[in-house]
Amino acid sequence: MTARVYLDWNATTPLRPEARAAMAAAWDLAGNPSSVHAEGREARRLVEAARAATAAAVGALPRNVVFTSSGTEANALALAPGLRNGARGPVGRLLISAIEHASVLAGGRFAPGAVSKITVTKSGVIDLDDLRRHLVSGPPALVSIMAANNETGALQPVREAAGIVHEAGGLLHVDAIQAFGKIPFNISAIGADLATLSAHKIGGPKGVGALVVAEGLGALVPLLRGGGQELGRRAGTENVAGIAGFGAAVEAAIVARDAEAARIGLLRSRLERGLRQSEGLTLFSEEVARLPNTTLFTAPGLKAETAVIGFDLEGIAVSSGSACSSGKVQPSHVLQAMGFAAQMAQGAVRLSLGWSTSEADIDCCLEAWRKLSGALLRGERRNTA
Amino acid sequence: MTARVYLDWNATTPLRPEARAAMAAAWDLAGNPSSVHAEGREARRLVEAARAATAAAVGALPRNVVFTSSGTEANALALAPGLRNGARGPVGRLLISAIEHASVLAGGRFAPGAVSKITVTKSGVIDLDDLRRHLVSGPPALVSIMAANNETGALQPVREAAGIVHEAGGLLHVDAIQAFGKIPFNISAIGADLATLSAHKIGGPKGVGALVVAEGLGALVPLLRGGGQELGRRAGTENVAGIAGFGAAVEAAIVARDAEAARIGLLRSRLERGLRQSEGLTLFSEEVARLPNTTLFTAPGLKAETAVIGFDLEGIAVSSGSACSSGKVQPSHVLQAMGFAAQMAQGAVRLSLGWSTSEADIDCCLEAWRKLSGALLRGERRNTA
Repeated sequence: MTARVYLDWNATTPLRPEARAAMAAAWDLAGNPSSVHAEGREARRLVEAARAATAAAVGALPRNVVFTSSGTEANALALAPGLRNGARGPVGRLLISAIEHASVLAGGRFAPGAVSKITVTKSGVIDLDDLRRHLVSGPPALVSIMAANNETGALQPVREAAGIVHEAGGLLHVDAIQAFGKIPFNISAIGADLATLSAHKIGGPKGVGALVVAEGLGALVPLLRGGGQELGRRAGTENVAGIAGFGAAVEAAIVARDAEAARIGLLRSRLERGLRQSEGLTLFSEEVARLPNTTLFTAPGLKAETAVIGFDLEGIAVSSGSACSSGKVQPSHVLQAMGFAAQMAQGAVRLSLGWSTSEADIDCCLEAWRKLSGALLRGERRNTA
Repeated sequence: MTARVYLDWNATTPLRPEARAAMAAAWDLAGNPSSVHAEGREARRLVEAARAATAAAVGALPRNVVFTSSGTEANALALAPGLRNGARGPVGRLLISAIEHASVLAGGRFAPGAVSKITVTKSGVIDLDDLRRHLVSGPPALVSIMAANNETGALQPVREAAGIVHEAGGLLHVDAIQAFGKIPFNISAIGADLATLSAHKIGGPKGVGALVVAEGLGALVPLLRGGGQELGRRAGTENVAGIAGFGAAVEAAIVARDAEAARIGLLRSRLERGLRQSEGLTLFSEEVARLPNTTLFTAPGLKAETAVIGFDLEGIAVSSGSACSSGKVQPSHVLQAMGFAAQMAQGAVRLSLGWSTSEADIDCCLEAWRKLSGALLRGERRNTA
């Protein structure tokens, strides 16, 4: 693969050099972090340093960070009936927004009948009035809202939601996977009770996530039981190298965050200026605050599946939305929740940028789009007439 | 840490060079295996190559290998009510041996009242007559027996157990974590319905495991839901580098297995000859077939906690049994199940060897033991008179 342009950072990011270095160093430690000998203590030290870095980055205490094998696992660990925080809870039902990630849509350990969806506006932002309506009556709810949507980049009013949810005696879980490292995210400032992070969206390795909980949250309900790892909240020998890589990526991402966001934001503007030259092009959620790195667009006649393949043949990696759904291109549940017809929801292409994206990458992408768009918008398939 | 001697391979192993190389190569692949573009397909290829290698190593089909984040997760995925295989099952209760790993003792998703324990002999081998007695009446059982015990190394009669369990309409799960890579293990030859593997016991990375199922086994009950990864059996973006490292470690371990076992067996004999010079020393399970790399011993007056610290101060990493129990030295549940008194079960030290263990390591260990044993057997603590 020479001269490829990677514009699928919301699916997964290239590794940061800091993460590589931390993981390579971890490889030299033979020990199991649960072992009492020096080799074990060295491994334990790496895990705890990563925990401290992660906690500091989101305004939490280290003891309130639980490392998991993915954001999916962290979401599954979070979404359990019975959670409480002081006088709030125990939660007996789950409210989620209609644009959550598949791992939240799955509902965790709530019975399907105990899960309800909050609507979103045409701009892809959760409707707080609908949230309030859901909370008027019924048992205390666990509410799960993402900080930023993975497909549109639209920021969600999680801080306002926290106030509304707490007033109703419920708890708020925030899936911060896409927001973390791109914009400020602080669990205490938001007032969230639980938050999910993932390493491979910020330049860390695939296969590491974290659930962060607010001080005072009662016992989690473990998914994995056995050894006493993670203070009894998540059994299993720790992915020491991966966790060390996560910690290093967190530190690098936080230090670089604001400068990277500004630079990437300018590149995204360049990208969107170029795209807008196509007639009838729609940029989803452009009228609301978005992550600086995400563009989701469609145009009349565009089919996402064909477009993704077309871009790929031109050397450019793009996505049709979430990559976490078995590799198949399906109509976006996010755009459908925003009120767009299935046809349009099947035609959206996502371009997402990151720390190594260059101006040349953007220009390559626009050139490919100009080359492809004529045929794509007529609904033609390459090589199949 | 200079001139350390690592004799705690049953807790976790140093990485094999082949695993390091495979992981470093995987780091250069930015893609998410669920993405359709070239970067995604490259990542997918690595995961599937590791799956094929793992499947071939245990006599399974690639589609019957589910990668997880640990042996603990694989055990939790395996131990679910309702499993069936053809006419056998659905299982409604769980039978486990009394010497299983903590992640099996936790019982998976069976209610505590649906879990019973099979006794073991004084030599640490499961009592097949007790297994038969448990199977005489009651609903079809899922039976979980480890292939080799992690503390004593004692091999378990899993092949005979498979016949007994199947005749009673039940299913057999084999936790093969300690056996795999050290002695032949083939799920088809044994007739097991499910088997658990772990990467970090064979020279792969910490944080990767696998559940292997027999062809014909019905649907697993997923623990992690959301994306369609692992054919819908385990959601979450794959730990691509870790899985690649696992695959490389599997291939290296299988190729080297018999030669390594022979060499390590000779080293273990040297070790045990030296230990036997201490008066009253007990070598657990020495009268039955054991893994070639494991020695568990005690002597009158020995306290495991003090011994582990004493060895550590002499530069030698040893264990008091399973390392997977929160770093605390507790009486061994394995030795208690074998009928030894709590005092003896609190005094056992485990020495476990691996592919980089040398004759010099063994001699260092014996020298340390000679130096320490006088004080240790009088029950003295170093530096505390």
